[in-house]
Amino acid sequence: MTSPADPTASPPVLLDVTGRIARITLNRPERGNALNQPMADGLLDAVLHSANDPEVRCVVLTGAGKMFCVGGDIGDFADNSASIGEFLGRLAGTLHQTMTLLVSMKKPLICLVNGPAAGAGLSMAMCGDVVLAHPSAHFTAAYLGIGLTPDGGMTWLLPRLVGMRQAQDIILTNRRVEAAEAAAIGIVTRVVEDAALEREGSELAARLALGAVASMGTARKLLHESFASGFASQMDRELSAIAQAGKSPEGREGVKAFLERRSPDFKNAL
Amino acid sequence: MTSPADPTASPPVLLDVTGRIARITLNRPERGNALNQPMADGLLDAVLHSANDPEVRCVVLTGAGKMFCVGGDIGDFADNSASIGEFLGRLAGTLHQTMTLLVSMKKPLICLVNGPAAGAGLSMAMCGDVVLAHPSAHFTAAYLGIGLTPDGGMTWLLPRLVGMRQAQDIILTNRRVEAAEAAAIGIVTRVVEDAALEREGSELAARLALGAVASMGTARKLLHESFASGFASQMDRELSAIAQAGKSPEGREGVKAFLERRSPDFKNAL
Amino acid sequence: MTSPADPTASPPVLLDVTGRIARITLNRPERGNALNQPMADGLLDAVLHSANDPEVRCVVLTGAGKMFCVGGDIGDFADNSASIGEFLGRLAGTLHQTMTLLVSMKKPLICLVNGPAAGAGLSMAMCGDVVLAHPSAHFTAAYLGIGLTPDGGMTWLLPRLVGMRQAQDIILTNRRVEAAEAAAIGIVTRVVEDAALEREGSELAARLALGAVASMGTARKLLHESFASGFASQMDRELSAIAQAGKSPEGREGVKAFLERRSPDFKNAL
Repeated sequence: MTSPADPTASPPVLLDVTGRIARITLNRPERGNALNQPMADGLLDAVLHSANDPEVRCVVLTGAGKMFCVGGDIGDFADNSASIGEFLGRLAGTLHQTMTLLVSMKKPLICLVNGPAAGAGLSMAMCGDVVLAHPSAHFTAAYLGIGLTPDGGMTWLLPRLVGMRQAQDIILTNRRVEAAEAAAIGIVTRVVEDAALEREGSELAARLALGAVASMGTARKLLHESFASGFASQMDRELSAIAQAGKSPEGREGVKAFLERRSPDFKNAL
Repeated sequence: MTSPADPTASPPVLLDVTGRIARITLNRPERGNALNQPMADGLLDAVLHSANDPEVRCVVLTGAGKMFCVGGDIGDFADNSASIGEFLGRLAGTLHQTMTLLVSMKKPLICLVNGPAAGAGLSMAMCGDVVLAHPSAHFTAAYLGIGLTPDGGMTWLLPRLVGMRQAQDIILTNRRVEAAEAAAIGIVTRVVEDAALEREGSELAARLALGAVASMGTARKLLHESFASGFASQMDRELSAIAQAGKSPEGREGVKAFLERRSPDFKNAL
Repeated sequence: MTSPADPTASPPVLLDVTGRIARITLNRPERGNALNQPMADGLLDAVLHSANDPEVRCVVLTGAGKMFCVGGDIGDFADNSASIGEFLGRLAGTLHQTMTLLVSMKKPLICLVNGPAAGAGLSMAMCGDVVLAHPSAHFTAAYLGIGLTPDGGMTWLLPRLVGMRQAQDIILTNRRVEAAEAAAIGIVTRVVEDAALEREGSELAARLALGAVASMGTARKLLHESFASGFASQMDRELSAIAQAGKSPEGREGVKAFLERRSPDFKNAL
């Protein structure tokens, strides 16, 4: 996906598409999956492919090794000290393209948070429609600890997920949130005990991939526009959406299956 | 309110105005109060009357029988398959007029959720200022199960009430929320044990109807504009509102009663 | 700060700046720190000074005596009955200038809620980045009890902190929230047992004052714009902010200290 200097090196992001599910793995385990420009480029490529491939009906994002993602690779920040504004602008810009795709693509996203997440890693960990976390996961905003400000959509995502009170505390005092609290306040959907993370993640991905994916895509968009919308204009969007969905292959199959008292077959409703 | 084909049939929505309280009852218990076009029309009539009648100072919305409302009447969807876009557009359009009135009318709304609510029934169940639920109530988004997208303001209401994490899970994975969890996360205000639902609902309605209803109407409007507003512009609205309220009969009576150490008589402050 | 008629009287607001921390104390303990125009003027002066003094790196807001603030001084409302609209307009206008400064100043704000807060006192109590409450504190919206509508940003702050369901209940039914519940739902960050309130507040203020205050100011602004923003436009703001922060003295010191495995010295990074 990217062209590392050493062609035998493992690429910084892995993409596997099997059975309509794209699995994207952050793959710099020896660096805690720290985000540098090659990894950001590789992640954007993987997400662009997953979002645009019509065969892919569900995307799973996870990390290799013990960490989900420790955030930006700070060693690289220092190496680019002379042009740090441009360097951070490029890195954050690539990440933001990726985050926009993850949040707005017309298919569901599951994050499997295999371990600690910090900084940009926190933004990535919490951007899924469903986020399952390993008990070893913990969450830190991190930016203010090194004099920087949040990116990756953290200031948009966190207040919507956990409310303003927790968002202020987590970002401004930079406190660490353990897995159980993360589930209680809404950073993640739930904690899944140890080995079950992979199994439960796979089962959920398979189930969502059999669902009404096009309508899920529309519902995601409606949800993401919610807070900044007035009630009437949000209902206008809902009205257009349901009139359209009712005529769609998914809507016709869903209503038909309901009346015939059988499970709908959405994956062939195209 | 509506003209059913059989004039002896019970109307699909009942309206009773007694003692300054309008009680609106969804009344197709044999169909789980499923929403069809005649019920949507009847509900709009009842809400228009309640919102506009100056004698009405509090509105109560509930359902007849064991269900609050199972959502749209899917049998009707199939009967209108040839023109399903127009059919759903009309049904959702009528519902949206009703929801706009319920949310923006200048008087308080109590929902008494007597049993399960799904789809459009969930939107109706949660749109009140105070929502009391029977222990048998449970809540399901339902739309994606039949290939459709949410309407009735669900994508506006749910994130504001329960946060984005739960809203995503409830809408996209279509999981069912039991009454106790619904109270814990904010779909409803609280669960009221069995027979007490009616009594507690009536007491609360009577209490709110004796309150400063015009100022409540303004406070409702301010709350509904909150999330989409900047801090300064929201405070501008608050400033206009309190200067106006201070001069109003309710404000004058409230301040006077406070200083005279007596209960205010808002219902005659007109 | 103000000129009370009696020059020997204690001023209605105290300001103390020590060790880079400004401490603002509401100081009408004999009236429960009720807000009248002289106190509103004194508070605005104190906040203007604290926000603009570059030596001040953290602001603490608290109340003298047993109450934090019982809200507007209702006796004064009655004394100005003939021109109540103008009177409330001026009082709320002064308060709103103060609240805007508290929420948008480029340094952190800690509220130490030493006792009950109501009305405008509730808005002031909850506007901090971190809010610590004494166990004796309780919280009431109060406005509708006297026929008025909320001000001081209450309808903006409360839904963001506690969600719409609790905000509706607290404002419209005017119920009182005890300290423990206030922490559970997000009105305050946490309850601090008795004598520890002052100590924990001072320690936190000292810690924040040693932090990356300029970046905190930017993060506060990003958080306050969050709910009314689209995802892409919020990330655009984040991108500009981090590119700027990376070049700033705080960002350079933070990254350098991280790589040198030492604590950053932000207070001299100017």
